[in-house]
Amino acid sequence: MGVLVIGSVAFDTIKTPLARSKNILGGSASYSSVSASFFSPVNLVAVVGNDFPDEYRQLFKDRKVDLTGLSVKPGKTFSWEGEYGWDFNDPKTIATHLNVFADFNPRIPREYKNSEYLFLANIDPQIQAAVLKQLTKPKLVICDTMNYWIENKRNQLLRLLKKVDIFLLNESEAKQLTGENNLIKMAKAIIKLGPKTIIIKRGENGVLLFSGDSVFCIPAFLLESVFDPTGAGDTFAGGLIGYLSKCKTFNEANLRKAITYGSIMASFAVESFSLDKLKSIRNRDIERRYKKFKQQISF
Amino acid sequence: MGVLVIGSVAFDTIKTPLARSKNILGGSASYSSVSASFFSPVNLVAVVGNDFPDEYRQLFKDRKVDLTGLSVKPGKTFSWEGEYGWDFNDPKTIATHLNVFADFNPRIPREYKNSEYLFLANIDPQIQAAVLKQLTKPKLVICDTMNYWIENKRNQLLRLLKKVDIFLLNESEAKQLTGENNLIKMAKAIIKLGPKTIIIKRGENGVLLFSGDSVFCIPAFLLESVFDPTGAGDTFAGGLIGYLSKCKTFNEANLRKAITYGSIMASFAVESFSLDKLKSIRNRDIERRYKKFKQQISF
Repeated sequence: MGVLVIGSVAFDTIKTPLARSKNILGGSASYSSVSASFFSPVNLVAVVGNDFPDEYRQLFKDRKVDLTGLSVKPGKTFSWEGEYGWDFNDPKTIATHLNVFADFNPRIPREYKNSEYLFLANIDPQIQAAVLKQLTKPKLVICDTMNYWIENKRNQLLRLLKKVDIFLLNESEAKQLTGENNLIKMAKAIIKLGPKTIIIKRGENGVLLFSGDSVFCIPAFLLESVFDPTGAGDTFAGGLIGYLSKCKTFNEANLRKAITYGSIMASFAVESFSLDKLKSIRNRDIERRYKKFKQQISF
Repeated sequence: MGVLVIGSVAFDTIKTPLARSKNILGGSASYSSVSASFFSPVNLVAVVGNDFPDEYRQLFKDRKVDLTGLSVKPGKTFSWEGEYGWDFNDPKTIATHLNVFADFNPRIPREYKNSEYLFLANIDPQIQAAVLKQLTKPKLVICDTMNYWIENKRNQLLRLLKKVDIFLLNESEAKQLTGENNLIKMAKAIIKLGPKTIIIKRGENGVLLFSGDSVFCIPAFLLESVFDPTGAGDTFAGGLIGYLSKCKTFNEANLRKAITYGSIMASFAVESFSLDKLKSIRNRDIERRYKKFKQQISF
């Protein structure tokens, strides 16, 4: 069955100190589904407008991402415009046009309903909950979110968190959600909200896992140049769930490897705009970087 | 022979969001010599005023730090006053009184002159160079610095860098010294200045080693509460050189372990004001935390 990914497919317009791009393929479900596809079969549920080009559709097909669940609605595809400073941290949002995404009410195709591995990529927590309800026997549910939902749909997010297995968020979101300043305190506060496992993404400072009494902590793979950090967190999540789906057995050892693969996938994503780098790599490139990373943190 | 440490011994007055303290034992040489003493015999070269209390002197003696090189001059001990915000990053300096330190012109005691392991803790690079000149056969020279010297004594620092084996600095100092925004680019630029090995300290984001083509990168040991980050970098350096001196053989494997021990030592230092935590731990505490850390980053 592989992985079911639900989230946004979007046009991104991005400015970094190094370059700019206009209406390139983006969105949480785009990055995560393509990333997961290196490890498992992937089914995508999202919505686009009738302006969505065949070229972008082909990119998913080339990665064997199943598009049965990609609905096309009259109107324009969701678009986002953002700008990064030299620190490449959280971008400044210039514009968000929901377009066809405004009325997104996903119906999960019948053949996806018994999916076991579900990634609820960053979208409205009410939509995430509506999708989860349609699955008959989810085995592992991973959920991401963003500052906007923590601020504007906190209650809906809190209800959803009681039903997810792994909750992903970045450090500033964890701070926003809990009011804590310390990573361990943030994780302890979030675990009380429901999820047994918390992953805090820290961008170039790496990633942290809190699961029961266990802590796992790795730095990011070091790059000499970061081109565009957009989609790094989604790409991380795709690698994570893709690898876990491939393993089938969910345990701490596999979870740690999955986090490392997710982190390696993200390191590729940020080397180009959009999915340009992800579409150019092969599994051997991933394995090579995974080994190099392991060597870089060994003592 | 053990390790020779030269640097400052000071009175610190510190304000954090959690607590404040007045005229507690601080200074780069205090933290680094006590930290190194857990691994190797340590000889300290520094200057204090005649206001330096026996209680602080006793603390060094309890750790078997040799004080033959600690000169006492008429006047007041160097003092520093600083304040941290919630992020516990670089403190705001409120006041610096050099006092007896203003005329510090260290004469290395005869019995220290053939020291093999030298740590030039953060002080004026001219003084660091003057010390280095007095040693007859240094085998490994590690040098630290700070933003003040990069700004005000850049040429003297650059001359010194040609003679050191390992150069330590934190990320903001590396940025200041090189003008680069990327860690790998910073390291490459610094290696061109002379030192074969660069260690970039990143506080709660861990530490990076660049040595030839090799990169080593570990996160910081995660703490639920950081009490006072003062001296973390000096404590790191003490653990680093102390462990290397204990190993005797300088190679990459030992260097990686030394960096990890340094990082573990720093994690203890920040759990209290001054050297309070360092003076209360035993080697078994260090070993326990080292093992726990290793487990936390394994996959």
